Amino acid sequence: MTLTGKMLIGQQSLSGNREAIRAINPATNAALEPAYLGGHGEHVAQACALACAAFDTYREASLEARATFLETIATQIEALGDELIDRAVAETGLPRARIQGERGRTCGQLRTFARTVRAGEWLDVRVDTAQPERQPLPRPDLRQRHIALGPVAVFGASNFPLAFSVAGGDTASALAAGCPVVVKAHGAHPGTSELVGRAVAQAVKACGLPEGVFSLLYGSGREVGIALVTDPRIKAVGFTGSRSGGIALTQAAQARPEPIPVYAEMSSINPVYLFPAALEGRAEALAQGFVASLTQGAGQFCTNPGLVIAIEGAALDRFISTVSEHLPGCAAQTMLTPGIYSAYDEGVRALSEHAHVAATGRAAEGPNQGQAHVFATQAQDFLSNTHLQAEVFGSASLIVACADADEVRRVSEHLEGQLTATLHLDDADLASAKALLPVLERKAGRLLVNGWPTGVEVSDAMVHGGPFPATSDSRSTSVGTAAIHRFLRPVCYQDFPDALLPGALQHGNPLLLRRLLDGQREA
Amino acid sequence: MTLTGKMLIGQQSLSGNREAIRAINPATNAALEPAYLGGHGEHVAQACALACAAFDTYREASLEARATFLETIATQIEALGDELIDRAVAETGLPRARIQGERGRTCGQLRTFARTVRAGEWLDVRVDTAQPERQPLPRPDLRQRHIALGPVAVFGASNFPLAFSVAGGDTASALAAGCPVVVKAHGAHPGTSELVGRAVAQAVKACGLPEGVFSLLYGSGREVGIALVTDPRIKAVGFTGSRSGGIALTQAAQARPEPIPVYAEMSSINPVYLFPAALEGRAEALAQGFVASLTQGAGQFCTNPGLVIAIEGAALDRFISTVSEHLPGCAAQTMLTPGIYSAYDEGVRALSEHAHVAATGRAAEGPNQGQAHVFATQAQDFLSNTHLQAEVFGSASLIVACADADEVRRVSEHLEGQLTATLHLDDADLASAKALLPVLERKAGRLLVNGWPTGVEVSDAMVHGGPFPATSDSRSTSVGTAAIHRFLRPVCYQDFPDALLPGALQHGNPLLLRRLLDGQREA
Repeated sequence: MTLTGKMLIGQQSLSGNREAIRAINPATNAALEPAYLGGHGEHVAQACALACAAFDTYREASLEARATFLETIATQIEALGDELIDRAVAETGLPRARIQGERGRTCGQLRTFARTVRAGEWLDVRVDTAQPERQPLPRPDLRQRHIALGPVAVFGASNFPLAFSVAGGDTASALAAGCPVVVKAHGAHPGTSELVGRAVAQAVKACGLPEGVFSLLYGSGREVGIALVTDPRIKAVGFTGSRSGGIALTQAAQARPEPIPVYAEMSSINPVYLFPAALEGRAEALAQGFVASLTQGAGQFCTNPGLVIAIEGAALDRFISTVSEHLPGCAAQTMLTPGIYSAYDEGVRALSEHAHVAATGRAAEGPNQGQAHVFATQAQDFLSNTHLQAEVFGSASLIVACADADEVRRVSEHLEGQLTATLHLDDADLASAKALLPVLERKAGRLLVNGWPTGVEVSDAMVHGGPFPATSDSRSTSVGTAAIHRFLRPVCYQDFPDALLPGALQHGNPLLLRRLLDGQREA
Repeated sequence: MTLTGKMLIGQQSLSGNREAIRAINPATNAALEPAYLGGHGEHVAQACALACAAFDTYREASLEARATFLETIATQIEALGDELIDRAVAETGLPRARIQGERGRTCGQLRTFARTVRAGEWLDVRVDTAQPERQPLPRPDLRQRHIALGPVAVFGASNFPLAFSVAGGDTASALAAGCPVVVKAHGAHPGTSELVGRAVAQAVKACGLPEGVFSLLYGSGREVGIALVTDPRIKAVGFTGSRSGGIALTQAAQARPEPIPVYAEMSSINPVYLFPAALEGRAEALAQGFVASLTQGAGQFCTNPGLVIAIEGAALDRFISTVSEHLPGCAAQTMLTPGIYSAYDEGVRALSEHAHVAATGRAAEGPNQGQAHVFATQAQDFLSNTHLQAEVFGSASLIVACADADEVRRVSEHLEGQLTATLHLDDADLASAKALLPVLERKAGRLLVNGWPTGVEVSDAMVHGGPFPATSDSRSTSVGTAAIHRFLRPVCYQDFPDALLPGALQHGNPLLLRRLLDGQREA
């Protein structure tokens, strides 16, 4: 497939006429062809009009039709073969195996949502049957289901060109919920976005769905993004990116005449707790695990372990000295974009002003390579200096030494919201871990024992979310099947004749759903 | 029980020192004793500090303990006996039977949430068991439950002094979810609020819960309300009231360093559609039903039928003329407060400027009595004049005559979000109703056939919610058991030993929950 540099508005390919976006191979700083001319407000309006026109049809497509559509997208992405892998590698500097794995994750995610759609639990069907004889007033027949919110705007992320981009988790869960999707491609990987976008558009066509179910726009700067979030036909937004970007979109969405929900996954430093017995027993192994997690993928994960919290003493000293032994052996890695690299560089410099450097990785040997950095500080300094809590996206982390368990608790209460919190513990630590747990539950969406936060499973029980600023909406997850709930709202039907009821609510239960019927869950 | 005029901060009674709030008997304009001195920021801070201190304990209280607490509140409210009824009647001007019914609804609501808490479905437990042998990477053990968001601020409503106030639906659902609650009493019924507040505080004590689980504050003006919404310890807000009030709270909540969700139920005119065959067959009966629904409780319901939409012609003329026959027999009714009465009066005057008066009820015979008004207009005027879509809280409604079904659809698409939409139809209308249904599903939280929107059942399937401006969050309901979901967020536990897991997630499933286990729902 030849890349065209064009946007997709429904089934139509269109060129923008704003500033060109061109991918940069971060490993060489070479610009990649073709140029993607940015769209403008009129393109946004066209895509939203198509999405709006498709909505009533698409949201009532059968569960089977919608599931098949998601599976067809996966098949179409796989059919892109090596062209997709080659382009994604060139646009991101990520290793080939990582991109191949991410493709597997992306397609698996689409198929997982297909299963979720078919199972139909997300409809949350509730039926309260009529009680015409009830005193003092009869009870009407009441039936509730969930329906899709409306067209959704999705912003592709820089760090997962497949799994959190054009056909990533936000798109998959919105399509699963019955929402048409308008994607704004991330400027770092426009070619990858075009390839995947065409795969989705082909699936729309192959499944006989209205073309407005999917559009793909390009645009540098704020024009396209803000036009999209403020278009009255858009009813929700999915975003993965920076804190400032997420907050800007949230504010634009709140300032609309009709405010809409924004699911922005933004900023997290993912504290890792080394409890005393665990640290005493295996400081060296923990240090090696930490270094591996920190440097994986140049640290460009939302769940990168950016903070280590432990009680000071000989065991923590051993941990730090093992980190200092191993980090220098870690090569600097090409970061995703020149912009991300320079932001990392700046973040490291800022941390250097407020904490001391405990260890560094190998120096850069090519353009845009991030050198790993581990800093250390005292709890008192951490508590009094908000700079130390800023996310530095990349392989940078800060070790906070606490005087005792009380100080560990104070540091924890001081933390902003997080995607994850990790506890390394042995049996002898259970009581202290249990005492700290309520704080961590208030702070983070996912808690891990004796693991590392990088690596986010796509499954039913996953929570990739958390209190602000980890996300803009702690009631949700952006990974895993529960992500579908972000794009749904309940509707109640009172005393409806069967002929007017949607299938999910009809008296004969033709979809064989496990309804909540008069307060009892059906078997 | 002697009313004290004091606030409740946990178990402590405290006087404020700001401007006094005094209830007015709207039937006589007489001020009622005692005066309630308003609180200030320091009282808010004390209540929030107590709520915060109570949170970790209260949210982990057993399901049985929390359910018993809700039931104890209901028992304590019933034990107030006639004193509560007398005071509520005096403060609101509502008929005694209505207040008695509302007490039943309020206590029934508390007991319904007790059942919901015990059933435990709201925990939404999901378990993905470990797959250590999985390739290319092992899967960890992942367990998800929902936990309470944190302390919740609840604003009492004017129009339901019991069911939507101190121990109303917001409080009941927040307590059910595990959230401590700080209530700001509505200034229209401070004595009713004190009585109910003391009942709740007694239940807190009787159940041995931390005192911060419940506080009750008074305050005129914005000081207490804004301090409450912006206190960093408050994590969500429940509100029922005006559009401007709800928007102000939402904006204050969004402007916090950590924005929080606001569930504001605000403004709805509740369109009623009279389909041709139904109108032809029973214009007179529909008109009588409409008048009864419109004038019930002086029209002071969020779901009052403020808009009637039909195709013009002889049948609609019969409907209007029957309304004109019956409305003059409807006595003017005392409204809740002098302020609500004058807002109604103003709203009626504004509508009079933009539509013609089709019928009026009997003129007022006492202070603060609202005279029912029905207006009529043409669809073209409705479409071009946004004044005609403003909610007038009270017994006022507007009939919109449309040329044909297309115009009915255009009027419907033009509507803002609504709590309800009602369809009066016969079999011959099914096709046209079906064609309009997708629009109505997008516009409203509850759709009714051949009924009237007043009367909101507390049950599993109820939705009392809808797109903006009906509410600030269309993903939720403020009535019915699903209201508990507003105050919850998911947390995932990865590779946790049983000793650290909450009961709901332990391997042996000691709470006997129907978990989603490896993708399958347990029986």
